Amino acid sequence: MAGDAIAAARRLAPRLAARAAEHDRDGTFPVEDFADLRAAGLFGLMVPGRLGGREATFAEYAAVAYELARGNGATALVFNMHASVTGALSAVTEEVAESLGVPDEALAARDRMLAEAAAGSWYGVAMSERGAGSRLSQLATVYEPVDGGYHIKGAKTFCSGAGQADAYLVAARSASDQSVVSQFLVPATVDGLKVEPTWDALGMRATASHDLHIDSVVSDDTLLGGVEGLALVVAQLMPHWLIASYAAVYIGVAQAAVDAAVEHVVKRGVSELPSVRSRIGRADAAVAATRLVVAEAARRVDEEPGAEETNRWVWRAKLLAGTTAAEVAASMLEAAGTSATRRGHPLERLYRDARCGSLHPATSDVCADWLGVAAIGGDPDREGTTPRW
Amino acid sequence: MAGDAIAAARRLAPRLAARAAEHDRDGTFPVEDFADLRAAGLFGLMVPGRLGGREATFAEYAAVAYELARGNGATALVFNMHASVTGALSAVTEEVAESLGVPDEALAARDRMLAEAAAGSWYGVAMSERGAGSRLSQLATVYEPVDGGYHIKGAKTFCSGAGQADAYLVAARSASDQSVVSQFLVPATVDGLKVEPTWDALGMRATASHDLHIDSVVSDDTLLGGVEGLALVVAQLMPHWLIASYAAVYIGVAQAAVDAAVEHVVKRGVSELPSVRSRIGRADAAVAATRLVVAEAARRVDEEPGAEETNRWVWRAKLLAGTTAAEVAASMLEAAGTSATRRGHPLERLYRDARCGSLHPATSDVCADWLGVAAIGGDPDREGTTPRW
Amino acid sequence: MAGDAIAAARRLAPRLAARAAEHDRDGTFPVEDFADLRAAGLFGLMVPGRLGGREATFAEYAAVAYELARGNGATALVFNMHASVTGALSAVTEEVAESLGVPDEALAARDRMLAEAAAGSWYGVAMSERGAGSRLSQLATVYEPVDGGYHIKGAKTFCSGAGQADAYLVAARSASDQSVVSQFLVPATVDGLKVEPTWDALGMRATASHDLHIDSVVSDDTLLGGVEGLALVVAQLMPHWLIASYAAVYIGVAQAAVDAAVEHVVKRGVSELPSVRSRIGRADAAVAATRLVVAEAARRVDEEPGAEETNRWVWRAKLLAGTTAAEVAASMLEAAGTSATRRGHPLERLYRDARCGSLHPATSDVCADWLGVAAIGGDPDREGTTPRW
Amino acid sequence: MAGDAIAAARRLAPRLAARAAEHDRDGTFPVEDFADLRAAGLFGLMVPGRLGGREATFAEYAAVAYELARGNGATALVFNMHASVTGALSAVTEEVAESLGVPDEALAARDRMLAEAAAGSWYGVAMSERGAGSRLSQLATVYEPVDGGYHIKGAKTFCSGAGQADAYLVAARSASDQSVVSQFLVPATVDGLKVEPTWDALGMRATASHDLHIDSVVSDDTLLGGVEGLALVVAQLMPHWLIASYAAVYIGVAQAAVDAAVEHVVKRGVSELPSVRSRIGRADAAVAATRLVVAEAARRVDEEPGAEETNRWVWRAKLLAGTTAAEVAASMLEAAGTSATRRGHPLERLYRDARCGSLHPATSDVCADWLGVAAIGGDPDREGTTPRW
Repeated sequence: MAGDAIAAARRLAPRLAARAAEHDRDGTFPVEDFADLRAAGLFGLMVPGRLGGREATFAEYAAVAYELARGNGATALVFNMHASVTGALSAVTEEVAESLGVPDEALAARDRMLAEAAAGSWYGVAMSERGAGSRLSQLATVYEPVDGGYHIKGAKTFCSGAGQADAYLVAARSASDQSVVSQFLVPATVDGLKVEPTWDALGMRATASHDLHIDSVVSDDTLLGGVEGLALVVAQLMPHWLIASYAAVYIGVAQAAVDAAVEHVVKRGVSELPSVRSRIGRADAAVAATRLVVAEAARRVDEEPGAEETNRWVWRAKLLAGTTAAEVAASMLEAAGTSATRRGHPLERLYRDARCGSLHPATSDVCADWLGVAAIGGDPDREGTTPRW
Repeated sequence: MAGDAIAAARRLAPRLAARAAEHDRDGTFPVEDFADLRAAGLFGLMVPGRLGGREATFAEYAAVAYELARGNGATALVFNMHASVTGALSAVTEEVAESLGVPDEALAARDRMLAEAAAGSWYGVAMSERGAGSRLSQLATVYEPVDGGYHIKGAKTFCSGAGQADAYLVAARSASDQSVVSQFLVPATVDGLKVEPTWDALGMRATASHDLHIDSVVSDDTLLGGVEGLALVVAQLMPHWLIASYAAVYIGVAQAAVDAAVEHVVKRGVSELPSVRSRIGRADAAVAATRLVVAEAARRVDEEPGAEETNRWVWRAKLLAGTTAAEVAASMLEAAGTSATRRGHPLERLYRDARCGSLHPATSDVCADWLGVAAIGGDPDREGTTPRW
Repeated sequence: MAGDAIAAARRLAPRLAARAAEHDRDGTFPVEDFADLRAAGLFGLMVPGRLGGREATFAEYAAVAYELARGNGATALVFNMHASVTGALSAVTEEVAESLGVPDEALAARDRMLAEAAAGSWYGVAMSERGAGSRLSQLATVYEPVDGGYHIKGAKTFCSGAGQADAYLVAARSASDQSVVSQFLVPATVDGLKVEPTWDALGMRATASHDLHIDSVVSDDTLLGGVEGLALVVAQLMPHWLIASYAAVYIGVAQAAVDAAVEHVVKRGVSELPSVRSRIGRADAAVAATRLVVAEAARRVDEEPGAEETNRWVWRAKLLAGTTAAEVAASMLEAAGTSATRRGHPLERLYRDARCGSLHPATSDVCADWLGVAAIGGDPDREGTTPRW
Repeated sequence: MAGDAIAAARRLAPRLAARAAEHDRDGTFPVEDFADLRAAGLFGLMVPGRLGGREATFAEYAAVAYELARGNGATALVFNMHASVTGALSAVTEEVAESLGVPDEALAARDRMLAEAAAGSWYGVAMSERGAGSRLSQLATVYEPVDGGYHIKGAKTFCSGAGQADAYLVAARSASDQSVVSQFLVPATVDGLKVEPTWDALGMRATASHDLHIDSVVSDDTLLGGVEGLALVVAQLMPHWLIASYAAVYIGVAQAAVDAAVEHVVKRGVSELPSVRSRIGRADAAVAATRLVVAEAARRVDEEPGAEETNRWVWRAKLLAGTTAAEVAASMLEAAGTSATRRGHPLERLYRDARCGSLHPATSDVCADWLGVAAIGGDPDREGTTPRW
């Protein structure tokens, strides 16, 4: 069934591509793209079969994200957030749940969230905050227990799909114990959610990654895992959803840049210039190599999630996808020349989109540091020049 | 007096910078910037003192362009076109004029054009065409003699300041002899000029480099040099105005990117991260080095224009300014992080502006080829993988 | 059985490494290494089981070469030549033989050559010539038929293992028809073979890649395929043995450089410097990525040899292994510092060895051109800026 | 007179070049080169005219070093050490001497040292130690006062010209106060000096940078400045002699690599390959740019030694010369191809020599950090990720 998903993504890509320029120009959310994804059943991609989903592996997710990104990187990036939420929820096995002390009602609530995704809902992520970035250890959003649930108050930024998603994964600290960080799946329909339209950026402009203000009371069963304080645990258990899931998107963007450059130089009759051929040849090799790295990381995530060697591949994928996408897109623009810098030309957009991969957490510089510590034999999640989370 | 001009440019830069974001966002021409330049007497920068100008050297031009570009690269780039026209016209000495057979009336006409510049007019350049790029040998715009002047017909693209300049330098071929390319200074007020607002690009968005359609009759005295067929001669005589004049602009843009990154990382409290310091340190050195190259090229242009060694420095300046600006801006964005990719942040604009330097003719790849031929001892204006003009 | 071969190579690597410094210093051939390879049965690696060999796939070859190169790149590089000869001979199926008109006696002769390899003989390659490089179309060595065989006369260069191998694959042109290029497996024992000890180079110093002068009469059955003119056909049929087989060696060298740097910085107590960690982290990712590319190319060679997509991976592997090895080794030397530049330090040797990968035919610049033509949709074996063979 | 020195260096370069391959191969000191330098009066280059020297500026030194390095980088590098000693000694003005409390006898001793240099003596530097590197703050060599002088005991490494120089600048700590570091000019003729021939390295093989063991009693007047504890003061006063003086050498090496590549590709008939031209063109520009940086740093050292802005240029020169030399030499080797990797080919040696520039203290990574701190507005001599001295 997941194989169908990859084929479906490949089929949808040209439709996404046809709408990409407009949404990029106006910074509007690709509502039609998401209707297409829903119709193709892709919101249930990571959901277990018993709950109506396609029960895809991480490798299958990566292949789907790559295909979508060849159409529109921004659409793929928002889809990535939804896949991360549903994928991480699905990946909590009974053993893990038991070891974390997750009560049965919480598992039932989790199943309802996943079943709704399979039925056509999708979820955004509200983790980053101005000032704290994506570091869970520095969040200012707080929650406190109230009758029948929790009161959450704070402000999030870079919330992809804000105003569009059916619910948001919100990370917050306990008001009574700053060291306790929990996550809630907050329905878009609760009172007190307000989208502040701040997203207007260099690239990935169609993600609607606006600020989200929250001053809401949510029910008990929105607390993920049913136990407070699980957020940091999950971050360490599933680095692939925080790190490598971006990589598949950016390799799709990089490939799209090569394809656009080839089309452009053939059309302009400059495909025989030696410098053009050399740039395209080197780009082709770099993208192909990085795509293998993403696939390898994904394969290992499926086979041995959380293993030391798996995680090294996860971080390699993030580093290489980010740097390769930016470098390849820049070189392709140089191969294509000034006429490709006009707005509306695919390369103009891809060049800006491609630049963003290295900047998502963990940034390329953080990845290099992490990988260096690991190669030297240290514990890269604890040591390091920069805070990890 | 030129020293005053540099100081004036430095004084104006913050005013230009304050308006840059708005013009970049909307793609509007910085009319107020040009009013400032006029008020500061900078339109006469390259005009001889006897005609009311500041009689600046090429080195002084380069310093002025650098300072303006630290404020707004787009403004500096349009100013560069005007400086190229007035600089090249001023550089035609009596000896050169005589050797080219320039009649006295043409010199008088030239003086009027320059005097008007000193009095507050400014000129754009309408050379490139869709399909031909900037190669004079492939123009489709033609002219033919008519009573009292010439009829010019064709379409130009990338005409910086279109709809804003007081006159345009238009390159066209003779209808009766395709090998003859001439240049005219066409007043913006003639009938038959039409600006098609096509400029909407990745970077340098405020240059109003729209398409210009021309179907106009111009008077005799608009033919530069008064003799047909001088365009290619001038291109070879003054490569600095075609090649190196851009370089000063892009080094200003690169320096602005370093400055913006420093301000950003200090404000965000991340200036002590080793990766940030390393990126800024390497960028600082690269920009400083390239600025020296531009200054050296300019110094030699003033001392021995057209000399073989001078031209090598001219092409080195173009190559290095283009590549350095793009690489430095990309690294500074990475040092600053995601928050600097928001539209309105200086780095977001500078990153896009900086990308354009390598793409202006002669592109970086063409420069590398030219310099390679020269280093090997060949004639780089004749040999080479790619057509030069 | 091939799995055993990989394990054997891994076991041998430390022995090779222990001898590497001495052979590098003196430029001597690692005779003991080859005795070890013989004892481990690795000369029969590519030989069919029915002839006593291990019948390894190309992927298994690549894994063996990688492991050997982690010990000593030079040893692995000479082994690569032997594997290429035996691998290409083994790969000629009955169908291919029939289509090329290979007579039965030639197949029998081929089987004898392979059986001898399985029994402990190894073969060198004498293809390149001074002036012609490795381009078969420009060879000066000629042969002509004589009673019972052929008289071959000429001089070869870069003949790895010269004076050590049991036989040499010699490429030569027909004296009567310059367009006919044939290959002979010339026994080291024939009269008229003379090794001129010219090999004294920057890196890979232990390969004994001396000049080989030949003025010899060889028997009929040394003509590979039994038909004249097959050399160019084979070159195009099996680019993996000419192109990608090097790649596995250089990725082993690159990994050895990372390992040596890690050991060095830990021992010197500088492993916590941020710049050291960043260099090692980026190198780790680059080597891991390229290793995947080599494995992918090898996998496809085994599954669909000669297919268009297979060949693209073959050329990607060569390009990336060459550039990655050189860049990684240079960065690792910079991470380790001056003390690692002392002769005898592994990094000092690895830095020089690693530089050679891009320079072997097809060079990195030729690979980039080939890949560019392929990506643009042309025929990269026919088009291109540079002659391919 | 210094102008004569530059011309003399340019005249000597081909003689140095003719001997370079042999000394590189054998790791022998270029005794004849130093005889040539003596005969040309270059040992007195930095010595005041009143003491018989040429009283050269730092800019003149840089020009001399560049020319010598185009002949043989190793010779230029040893000469650089002598120039540093004599240049630093000459630069101590009476004002500085007074402020540091230098007694008159010490100034007289200093003058004798300089006069001897002008008369044909030359000095090496014995600063680095195994373990401590070049950081003065971590030296293990100690001295203590004895009758009529000092007893110095310890071991130095990377002492260029060991066994050849007429005296050595030795840095040591006071046995009674570990924070006091002093420098002595130890005559080669004292008892207890022993050269251990350890220098056998990747590049710059002719510098005889052996270990020097010292267990000697020296006279009072060998203490530089006549006061203990001045070593660290001088290091901070004259970073140009510790940092930028290398840069001139490595730019000469880089230029030699470009020249050798041009000669090679012309001779081999491959100078028209686009990839060759592109590599040479980019290298030409990079070397020209960095040469300007070295000249600018030198000019500022002469005009305003020790000024903040001067020091930034000094560090930029070191960073860019090191990285440019290594990158250019690697690219030139790739342009020239395998035949240029044979030992004895100039590019083979230049590639190895060029690699060393980034590794000399301050390494490129340290320079980047220093420059980053400076650009951000900090104090780069105090802050920073890595210890500076």
